[in-house]
Amino acid sequence: MELVDRLLKGDKRAAARLITLAENRSEEAVKALQLVHAHTGGAHIIGVTGPPGGGKSTVVDRLAKEFRKKDKTIGIIAVDPSSPFTGGALLGDRIRMSDLSLDENVFIRSMGTRGSLGGLARATGDTINFLDALGKDVIIVETVGAGQAEIDIVKVSHTVLIITVPGLGDDIQAIKAGMMEIGDIFVVNKADRGGAEKKAAEIEMMLDLNAKSNGWKPPVLQTNARDGDGIKELFESIIKHRQYLEKSDLLQEKLAEKAKTDIINILNEWVEDFCIGEFGGGELEGLVSKVIERELDPYTAADTILNKIKKDEQSCNIRGI
Amino acid sequence: MELVDRLLKGDKRAAARLITLAENRSEEAVKALQLVHAHTGGAHIIGVTGPPGGGKSTVVDRLAKEFRKKDKTIGIIAVDPSSPFTGGALLGDRIRMSDLSLDENVFIRSMGTRGSLGGLARATGDTINFLDALGKDVIIVETVGAGQAEIDIVKVSHTVLIITVPGLGDDIQAIKAGMMEIGDIFVVNKADRGGAEKKAAEIEMMLDLNAKSNGWKPPVLQTNARDGDGIKELFESIIKHRQYLEKSDLLQEKLAEKAKTDIINILNEWVEDFCIGEFGGGELEGLVSKVIERELDPYTAADTILNKIKKDEQSCNIRGI
Repeated sequence: MELVDRLLKGDKRAAARLITLAENRSEEAVKALQLVHAHTGGAHIIGVTGPPGGGKSTVVDRLAKEFRKKDKTIGIIAVDPSSPFTGGALLGDRIRMSDLSLDENVFIRSMGTRGSLGGLARATGDTINFLDALGKDVIIVETVGAGQAEIDIVKVSHTVLIITVPGLGDDIQAIKAGMMEIGDIFVVNKADRGGAEKKAAEIEMMLDLNAKSNGWKPPVLQTNARDGDGIKELFESIIKHRQYLEKSDLLQEKLAEKAKTDIINILNEWVEDFCIGEFGGGELEGLVSKVIERELDPYTAADTILNKIKKDEQSCNIRGI
Repeated sequence: MELVDRLLKGDKRAAARLITLAENRSEEAVKALQLVHAHTGGAHIIGVTGPPGGGKSTVVDRLAKEFRKKDKTIGIIAVDPSSPFTGGALLGDRIRMSDLSLDENVFIRSMGTRGSLGGLARATGDTINFLDALGKDVIIVETVGAGQAEIDIVKVSHTVLIITVPGLGDDIQAIKAGMMEIGDIFVVNKADRGGAEKKAAEIEMMLDLNAKSNGWKPPVLQTNARDGDGIKELFESIIKHRQYLEKSDLLQEKLAEKAKTDIINILNEWVEDFCIGEFGGGELEGLVSKVIERELDPYTAADTILNKIKKDEQSCNIRGI
């Protein structure tokens, strides 16, 4: 496949094209993903999330530059689960990154929900794989927002950064529950504001309560990314975490978790495709009518579709296979 | 089934018990849902969402009281996709509702993510059905947060309220994209703050840009829920929207959309169950290992599972059927 050959030779345009194909769920993308899979696994994947307004983009910007100083090539994927847009550099704060985007060793891509959340998670995973095959040493996945969708997207990364700021309200506090579990490194950004020490102490306390048994104690760092303060320490923490992953069984566990999630996302998206698109002859509409008329409950309807899937051995396979 | 008999007679304890069973994905819950389905469809389902800090709970509180004045019975489901907790009244701001929760014609339930987001959407749907069968006239589904998950949860409601406040930053503005599409009524709450007129005008402008072809022009209302200002107008708008739905084809469309979503959520959750729990004999682990070792790509692995589903005609059915 020509696009894949070009990708493996480091052609950025081929990568951009393949990512678009994956977003559009084309059969060509699936074929490409099958071909590139053997060439992936080399990149260190860093996930970045946290409440809105935490300065995530600025931190990512600074980190990318730090990696560039060490001659590492970078992929940045900015995911916005609440945006229907996708493709270019649509996120406003991405503009600040213009000096990075001129560096030809940096590949930046924004993604939004085109369809379902499952679709977005799957497309993000596909994009990681293409950038990995493109030869990027480090891939940073940044999500805008702080909900479960964002957590699901970054938690398959090798190193997860949770970025917050001093003095966010209670509404935001509640969001932290799911984040405490997935964070490998915590960052209190905009630490020049009052309350950074207090915030860091709160996080330390919550981490003590939720202590993991895997041997890694997540550090809580303070940064002021706009001025670059604390970025060097953050960079070193990431390197240290990577080394820890490699020495322990944790990397293997994370890879297994990611592979499982990938497989399930593919199956879920396939089910949606089958139900909405390919469950031909108006059969889904017939079931839906019966559910609305209270002749049939949705569980029995779902079971009917499942039986159809089982009987239809030939025609319904994962798209592109 | 005894619990269902009690539910249909209006027993709140039976409802609470059945909801817990549904959250735990028990087979009993599925049987109950099949039985109650014929007794549902009577309730008006109102979805409420919007950015954090918009005073959603206060608006819901006021609305519920307005419905109570008209002698309508109420169910309130407060969904927090970012919280791992579920069950009681865990959301802090729910405490303000204590006077409502003493009213025996009001049923209040909080829900968080126990497992996947798909699971939460399915469990919320199940809870709506149980409260509908319990005989509630109006069911209000409120979600905390503003991501795609929240949008997915409320968009199956008959009437969707989007609640915002003056002067939220740009980070929040981005979130509106998906919300503009699903909102039937827009509310600028805390309108006593400066900037309410401006915010309402902005929403009006965005609505003009995204004009729906379905004939309903979403009103943009201003409220100050804490003092009760504007709540009567909001209540009347909801009634007007309901009447509009009933006169037009829109209700039927919304019901079809909901039935479709229910069926797909059930299938997706089943796929996850099958992959993680029931795909026996360590086969999933075997596939995962091969994916990690780059011997197999995840698409081919997913297809392997799909083929297994197809062949295993006997044992893998929707749980409880």
